[in-house]
Amino acid sequence: MSEQDIKIFPVPGIRMSAVSAGIKKAGWLDVVLFELCEGATVAGVYTQNAFCAAPVQVTRDHNSAAQPRYLLINTGNANAGTGQAGVQDALHCCEKLALATGLTTQQVLPFSTGVIGEALPVEKITAVYAQALASLSEQNWTAAAQGIMTTDTVPKFSSRQISIAGNKLTVTGIAKGAGMIKPNMATMLGFIFTDAKIDKATLHEINLAHANRSFNRITVDGDTSTNDCCMLAASAQGELDYAALSDTDKAKVDAVFQDVYQDLAQAIVRDGEGASKFVTIDISEGLENSECLRLAYAVAESPLVKTALFASDPNWGRILAVVGRAGIPDLDISQVSIFLDDVCIVENGGKSPAYTEAAGQAVVSQSAFAIRIVLGRGDVSERIWTCDLSYDYVKINAEYRS
Amino acid sequence: MSEQDIKIFPVPGIRMSAVSAGIKKAGWLDVVLFELCEGATVAGVYTQNAFCAAPVQVTRDHNSAAQPRYLLINTGNANAGTGQAGVQDALHCCEKLALATGLTTQQVLPFSTGVIGEALPVEKITAVYAQALASLSEQNWTAAAQGIMTTDTVPKFSSRQISIAGNKLTVTGIAKGAGMIKPNMATMLGFIFTDAKIDKATLHEINLAHANRSFNRITVDGDTSTNDCCMLAASAQGELDYAALSDTDKAKVDAVFQDVYQDLAQAIVRDGEGASKFVTIDISEGLENSECLRLAYAVAESPLVKTALFASDPNWGRILAVVGRAGIPDLDISQVSIFLDDVCIVENGGKSPAYTEAAGQAVVSQSAFAIRIVLGRGDVSERIWTCDLSYDYVKINAEYRS
Repeated sequence: MSEQDIKIFPVPGIRMSAVSAGIKKAGWLDVVLFELCEGATVAGVYTQNAFCAAPVQVTRDHNSAAQPRYLLINTGNANAGTGQAGVQDALHCCEKLALATGLTTQQVLPFSTGVIGEALPVEKITAVYAQALASLSEQNWTAAAQGIMTTDTVPKFSSRQISIAGNKLTVTGIAKGAGMIKPNMATMLGFIFTDAKIDKATLHEINLAHANRSFNRITVDGDTSTNDCCMLAASAQGELDYAALSDTDKAKVDAVFQDVYQDLAQAIVRDGEGASKFVTIDISEGLENSECLRLAYAVAESPLVKTALFASDPNWGRILAVVGRAGIPDLDISQVSIFLDDVCIVENGGKSPAYTEAAGQAVVSQSAFAIRIVLGRGDVSERIWTCDLSYDYVKINAEYRS
Repeated sequence: MSEQDIKIFPVPGIRMSAVSAGIKKAGWLDVVLFELCEGATVAGVYTQNAFCAAPVQVTRDHNSAAQPRYLLINTGNANAGTGQAGVQDALHCCEKLALATGLTTQQVLPFSTGVIGEALPVEKITAVYAQALASLSEQNWTAAAQGIMTTDTVPKFSSRQISIAGNKLTVTGIAKGAGMIKPNMATMLGFIFTDAKIDKATLHEINLAHANRSFNRITVDGDTSTNDCCMLAASAQGELDYAALSDTDKAKVDAVFQDVYQDLAQAIVRDGEGASKFVTIDISEGLENSECLRLAYAVAESPLVKTALFASDPNWGRILAVVGRAGIPDLDISQVSIFLDDVCIVENGGKSPAYTEAAGQAVVSQSAFAIRIVLGRGDVSERIWTCDLSYDYVKINAEYRS
């Protein structure tokens, strides 16, 4: 979703800027700074990749040890696979910013995204601090969302403002990511901010729950990045005190967070490298969440299904073959039904007698639709989102050094 | 490997023919018949896909119940996802051939490959039986290998003849497969024949062991077909009686089978849809076979790794990212080394100081090379084979209805 489509509500207590440090092409925004007011709380969920990037290690440590005041993000270089030198580089960037702002090194959280395995250009980053600090504003969301892009083709925002129990609540977030997308407990990079007052432990619970239902339910290519982070910050500068809310009102806050997280996660899939289709995979009547998710990802990551989707080909045989190989124990195929939106393609384990190629074609020719698989063996459901596999995915990844 | 490259040794007791039934394009060979002499034994391993195709179900039943005399193979239609009607169609084809040859229905084993979900053209198949029976010969290996092709671009053979303990042994096989290739206890379609005398139980052990070390160690796109079968038939018309051999001589026979199975499995990968590179993935110093295989397949099936290989880009960051996300429990990344052939790209969990881009580039520019990952945590190894992901893979699968 681009800024033209949505209204972005500033979040009191949060200022940001985006500048060009020359890490990416000359003139591209590639360093983004978020300033959090005193008293803000921050929660993070991070990549589960064992080759966790240096900035992720440092951010995790710093957010445990101190109250963060700056999020420092660079694109063009992931500072991953860089060993202990990479950690020193990330710390050095934090230290320099702390010196410039009278804070401690631990109050700066670093984030990097881009090429894996090259040394972080520390001098280029620290050289733009004065400019980045001077241009901080509550209004720079567009520039910040642009400044964290790599192979993304559009900046990704989501913003909501509602009144709950007479108190205004604002939630605004940005995210980036288009390839190497199968977040695992986190997304490529997501930064969500609210003006509510929320203590750190609660904030972590909210962040974890919503990352799970959004960023952890998408896949572009099944590859989990070394640099995934999803951060939620609460400035406590607004009217709403989460702890004082009734359970009913907490549920309303929950719904707002869910909207923002899912907006951002879905924006990543819509902008998936080379993607021309946005596809919802719905698994229902499973025995366990794990088997529903395993099947959903098997369908979403099958190159044969993805290329058929690209071709607008309702090739139900490929979907059926994935259901059969997804490793669901003791699957009774005679109970399985498969739908494209509301068009039944498989019932009782075989092609639906009522199915026509024209009906299937009409669904998959749309730019967005659902593949729905009903397992007929329980009452558990899962839903994930994915995209197709096109010539452009190959082109982007054969030509781009990520 | 094409027939130009290798000598094909006929197998006494085995005759074959390939004819055109009009299932694929007019004039293409699409029905293949293998005749086995009386007394031949047959072993099979079959797809683990829960949506097991009708002919696979019938073949499994028939081979348990009777001594097979014919293998009847059609391409252009997989007879999969066709429910009970598909089973009846397969049985009907067997019954008609049995009537024409004075055998029982159960002595015919049916195999199908091609489009999933369409009714088998029974009439077209049975209409060519007279022609197929009349043209049976011990010399028709080339036509048979061509007759089982779908998206394959070359026919796939392997043949060996050696003398063991003074007795001649012949092993000759054919296979097909280029897409939907991640066999699971079997390959797309593999038919291997020997003139040795081997009882059925032993034959099954040999087939299972070698399918595991060959067809079950390859992946093109991670998709397991509904129709995979690997059949091994022994005609007992040659000089060698397996049961009478010493253990040393049995090991020699074993080596011959290993050569033939691996030749065929590797030929499938070399002819993988759109493939331009043949890549060996070697995992060593693992704790368990399962973790080595999990990692090997994660690397082999990563779209980011595969597109980098297509681009001849030694993008070691993408390989490292896969190692980190492959779910190896308690992985100590400081012990991990990664090589491209003999060029060390990662050591102690970070980029090797000695690594140069030119050295990596030289390896991945070759048409065949190895990615070697040393885990440094045990003494278990696994090896699989795969290919790259190219524009042509997308083209083939966006345009071909498989």
